Amino acid sequence: MIVILKTGVSDDQISHVIERIEELGLRAHLSRGTFRTIIGVIGDENRIREEPLMAIPGVAEIVPILPPYKLASLDAHPEPSVIDVSGVKIGGGSLAMIAGPCSVEDEDRMYRIAESVRDSGANIFRGGAYKPRTSPYAFQGLGEDGLKLLRAVGDRFGMPVVTEVTDVRCVEVVAEYADMIQIGARNMQNFVLLTEVGRTKRPVLLKRGMSATVTDLLMSAEYILSQGNPNVVLCERGVKGFDPATRNLYDVAAVPLVHTLTHLPIIVDPSHATGRPDLIPACALAGVAAGADGVHIEVHDCPEVAKSDGPQALLPEQYRELAAKIRQLAELFGKKISPLPKAVA
Amino acid sequence: MIVILKTGVSDDQISHVIERIEELGLRAHLSRGTFRTIIGVIGDENRIREEPLMAIPGVAEIVPILPPYKLASLDAHPEPSVIDVSGVKIGGGSLAMIAGPCSVEDEDRMYRIAESVRDSGANIFRGGAYKPRTSPYAFQGLGEDGLKLLRAVGDRFGMPVVTEVTDVRCVEVVAEYADMIQIGARNMQNFVLLTEVGRTKRPVLLKRGMSATVTDLLMSAEYILSQGNPNVVLCERGVKGFDPATRNLYDVAAVPLVHTLTHLPIIVDPSHATGRPDLIPACALAGVAAGADGVHIEVHDCPEVAKSDGPQALLPEQYRELAAKIRQLAELFGKKISPLPKAVA
Amino acid sequence: MIVILKTGVSDDQISHVIERIEELGLRAHLSRGTFRTIIGVIGDENRIREEPLMAIPGVAEIVPILPPYKLASLDAHPEPSVIDVSGVKIGGGSLAMIAGPCSVEDEDRMYRIAESVRDSGANIFRGGAYKPRTSPYAFQGLGEDGLKLLRAVGDRFGMPVVTEVTDVRCVEVVAEYADMIQIGARNMQNFVLLTEVGRTKRPVLLKRGMSATVTDLLMSAEYILSQGNPNVVLCERGVKGFDPATRNLYDVAAVPLVHTLTHLPIIVDPSHATGRPDLIPACALAGVAAGADGVHIEVHDCPEVAKSDGPQALLPEQYRELAAKIRQLAELFGKKISPLPKAVA
Amino acid sequence: MIVILKTGVSDDQISHVIERIEELGLRAHLSRGTFRTIIGVIGDENRIREEPLMAIPGVAEIVPILPPYKLASLDAHPEPSVIDVSGVKIGGGSLAMIAGPCSVEDEDRMYRIAESVRDSGANIFRGGAYKPRTSPYAFQGLGEDGLKLLRAVGDRFGMPVVTEVTDVRCVEVVAEYADMIQIGARNMQNFVLLTEVGRTKRPVLLKRGMSATVTDLLMSAEYILSQGNPNVVLCERGVKGFDPATRNLYDVAAVPLVHTLTHLPIIVDPSHATGRPDLIPACALAGVAAGADGVHIEVHDCPEVAKSDGPQALLPEQYRELAAKIRQLAELFGKKISPLPKAVA
Repeated sequence: MIVILKTGVSDDQISHVIERIEELGLRAHLSRGTFRTIIGVIGDENRIREEPLMAIPGVAEIVPILPPYKLASLDAHPEPSVIDVSGVKIGGGSLAMIAGPCSVEDEDRMYRIAESVRDSGANIFRGGAYKPRTSPYAFQGLGEDGLKLLRAVGDRFGMPVVTEVTDVRCVEVVAEYADMIQIGARNMQNFVLLTEVGRTKRPVLLKRGMSATVTDLLMSAEYILSQGNPNVVLCERGVKGFDPATRNLYDVAAVPLVHTLTHLPIIVDPSHATGRPDLIPACALAGVAAGADGVHIEVHDCPEVAKSDGPQALLPEQYRELAAKIRQLAELFGKKISPLPKAVA
Repeated sequence: MIVILKTGVSDDQISHVIERIEELGLRAHLSRGTFRTIIGVIGDENRIREEPLMAIPGVAEIVPILPPYKLASLDAHPEPSVIDVSGVKIGGGSLAMIAGPCSVEDEDRMYRIAESVRDSGANIFRGGAYKPRTSPYAFQGLGEDGLKLLRAVGDRFGMPVVTEVTDVRCVEVVAEYADMIQIGARNMQNFVLLTEVGRTKRPVLLKRGMSATVTDLLMSAEYILSQGNPNVVLCERGVKGFDPATRNLYDVAAVPLVHTLTHLPIIVDPSHATGRPDLIPACALAGVAAGADGVHIEVHDCPEVAKSDGPQALLPEQYRELAAKIRQLAELFGKKISPLPKAVA
Repeated sequence: MIVILKTGVSDDQISHVIERIEELGLRAHLSRGTFRTIIGVIGDENRIREEPLMAIPGVAEIVPILPPYKLASLDAHPEPSVIDVSGVKIGGGSLAMIAGPCSVEDEDRMYRIAESVRDSGANIFRGGAYKPRTSPYAFQGLGEDGLKLLRAVGDRFGMPVVTEVTDVRCVEVVAEYADMIQIGARNMQNFVLLTEVGRTKRPVLLKRGMSATVTDLLMSAEYILSQGNPNVVLCERGVKGFDPATRNLYDVAAVPLVHTLTHLPIIVDPSHATGRPDLIPACALAGVAAGADGVHIEVHDCPEVAKSDGPQALLPEQYRELAAKIRQLAELFGKKISPLPKAVA
Repeated sequence: MIVILKTGVSDDQISHVIERIEELGLRAHLSRGTFRTIIGVIGDENRIREEPLMAIPGVAEIVPILPPYKLASLDAHPEPSVIDVSGVKIGGGSLAMIAGPCSVEDEDRMYRIAESVRDSGANIFRGGAYKPRTSPYAFQGLGEDGLKLLRAVGDRFGMPVVTEVTDVRCVEVVAEYADMIQIGARNMQNFVLLTEVGRTKRPVLLKRGMSATVTDLLMSAEYILSQGNPNVVLCERGVKGFDPATRNLYDVAAVPLVHTLTHLPIIVDPSHATGRPDLIPACALAGVAAGADGVHIEVHDCPEVAKSDGPQALLPEQYRELAAKIRQLAELFGKKISPLPKAVA
């Protein structure tokens, strides 16, 4: 950490800053420049990071040197983590192909969609039983009945299933039925919920919040990791942008950026990032070309009656075509779509 | 609601759209233009708002006409709501002056700060017992002990108290100790939490999320209102911006905008909006001049040892000076700072 | 165009709106809904688009139906345009590979870099002679000497050259030396400059401004097209974002979006979009996978002494490796990198 | 300036960095921490600022200490500058009240609007003769005829006039007719134009670009100052935001922020910042309360026939009411609206 002092800082103020640093168990290295004085803090920056040094009179700026996350950093784990979702591998060359409807709906439809996406190459089935909806008057999901149905569909087609949890009181039941727990974008900084899913050992699909920097995303992953759950998969799903032409602004550069900072895999979700079926295939391919460890796509066989997010769903046949291209692209980059497990736990 | 159809839409597609609208209990009014055909939907838009009409083949765009919130709208309640926080009024010409440290810390300090801000004119005391922190390694708050201390301080100085809740499991205990419950920016779309605070009757201070539009904010208020709790005070505290010079981008125009859309009061929080003590007073005054129904300021008597957000706290004497100017400004605009209640419930 | 009226609009106000529409030579189609009245405007929306109908008392909202650009629209030209830059084709399956240093610098270096990128597969050479620099104290480019040198390098290696123009008074001289004229992001809405390059017949590389929507970008293209110059190539180079980890926010979804709206080709510039050499290759590949018609990359053989933008340059060997992967990707998608012309005009 | 090196940097790389710094005439001060090595650069940072040190192998980050602008900084001029616009003062306690229509239109209307705003308290009259319009098909302004008319109106009512220049070739003619030259938001980084207006001695109204940080704005001011023209007035007029409810996002915190960084005055333009007449008065008052040195408002007596920006114009009577409140607010803060000059130069 470097502490930059204000012009005109007094010697007493400098001494006070140094004193505070030493009280906290670190050493201070003073350097007087032509215009400004700086103090290099020597020792474990993590012991001092949360201290309000910036509030000491005479301090102009604090420049941290180390990243604020530890377990998520490459220093802690230099090789890419490979997350195992009941037999399906994500990361280190293995791609997740997550597909399914936004919400869990009626039984027949679930079976139909699941069979279709599995045949197209999807290896994890998705569906929401607890839906975070902007409007209190919108469909809020089937709850535990939805979880049971999702589990049954996963078992029938041999696919692990992922579903969102929005309430700490439901973490246990979701962890019981699902192979992977999703934390949605709106809950990325719901630290209570992150802590609870960190206490399960279920793999977690952590979606980036709409106004979260990549550092914020990694700090949220750190919450989960710090509870003892190392199975975190990150997901880029678009940040807030100013162009109303797309639902969000798909930050594909976050994919290689994340790979320079952490060992955790990152997948892309062009369905939520763009909100437009006509742009989803191109953006999915862009994500894979950028090095994503998987692709998350919403698929529905009759979007005009979908209980949620119908307007952004791909049709099963559109998904089939896209999945075929992703497979070709993966091969070109020396990666493979992780095969379905023999049997789901 | 208006449905705009694509160029080249077929008659069958048009019929299908009309059919869907009629199935949902509304009427369709077709209008063929020179280049495009549009359908006016006649009847209660709210019955159709959540339907995925956009996913019907041939539909280019959906233009809603009514706002998606009802109870929060001026139609539901044309006069400004005045929220009563244990005797302190907010809205309709009465200003809230909320002040106090970011976190509840040690007893002596709490009493000292509370006495000072009360003497300066604050009418609600704040302090966090459950802190949502970006880092799992940062101070997370004193929990229930913090709540008790906050209550004791409020009682001693005759000030209602406000504190944040971050966990649905703590709503009950927070509602027991606090006069007003805060929902922080990161939880603005934690719909489960909104629903729970809506079930209490405690006034709620609802902070705007960093990527929330004003409509999003009002939809979150609607969650609380729809559970039967009409006591919601909105708070502008900065949205995500691109200039690193300030912590967030203070959207002061949201204040008059909110007043054109809803009866609920809105206060401003320049402490979080700017993160810089040198900008807070000017931004607080700007908020009042823009018509805000109150001002929320973090105050600490020794920011360099504060347990959280020290670098953005005002000193008690800075707060005194600011409060005096706010009082003058309020008078100029024909408003008044709500006096302290005789006795807090 | 649809005119949505306010609740409580009077009959006189409605009549006045209709009168204004008819004065402008269009017809009005009134539709009274349960809550609101709307007016469909029938006739050529373009005749009315710039009129301030929104300012008429009683009007709540104006919903345009047609895009505000004409010549740039797919209606005007349903097939993708193929732009010919002195023999190199861009669009319709042919990829531009634009590479070179940020600024034109000394002669030896220019020859060295040009030879290297040509051998790697670049088909257009770039270099700035007039540099738009944030600081008045930074290197501003070699001016006409830079243009001459760029021309000489292009001639030697048989590569068309592209360079930026920043001053209307230099359009003529730039058009004389260069095969393609670049309009930089900061000048995307310098309408005077757009008009002047529209009067030349030189192909124009039009970069998207940092706060421009895709519609804004197409309106700027329309300025050039409306002057009689149909040779416009768009370029996505990042928009303003909130995460300081990258220089800009690379909006790769703009590539397929542009293809749904216009016949003009669009290339990507991951050098400026990310500002980080470690992210450029992944983002370049993402752009091609998303359907971009070319890739623009800054290359320098000794970035630490570059006159501008050194920190974001790829080394020649990094470019070679990237170009090889782009070639493979292009083949997979049935596209090809346009070969160098036999002789440059 | 501080150079932070990468973990694992070699001794050779460190030596090379130090060598480069010394070659540039500065001294290097090495400091080895527990995890990272940093180099403090001692000497005039301005001599090294534009060098691509970041591109040297082993360098992780460059932390500048001094602001990149000199003449605009408070170091260069610690007291607030007071800009004199043909007798009207801006800054240092004197407020500019700039008002008038977006475009110069027909003669009668100009006289009518000017008389009205002057009587309400405006001290500078505005009107555009050269309009930067998003669409090539929109009204582009009356050109030199507009300038002449604007001058005549200013002379008649004894008001200095301000008008925008968009073309370097028109700087001379605009400087001849106008008392103050406006650089619009879209041209804030048109460095060629900044340089030309810097060569005149006319006061310049420099509007902040929609994606410009405050540092960017000050760098653009530096262009003008560095040409010998010290008469620059900054203007906050909204930056790009994500909420479609307002045209732009009004960054009122930029007002006090600018005052901590520069001696130049800053005014606010809530007309462009919000684009909504119903929000303009509140936002104007907020700007004054935040310490703005003036207010810029668009006024039109018949917005529904205005040649440009009609929907955001205030009516003359609305302006009168607003100006009266601004006067009261100014008094409260110990400022005054600069009186009209006896005679305009």
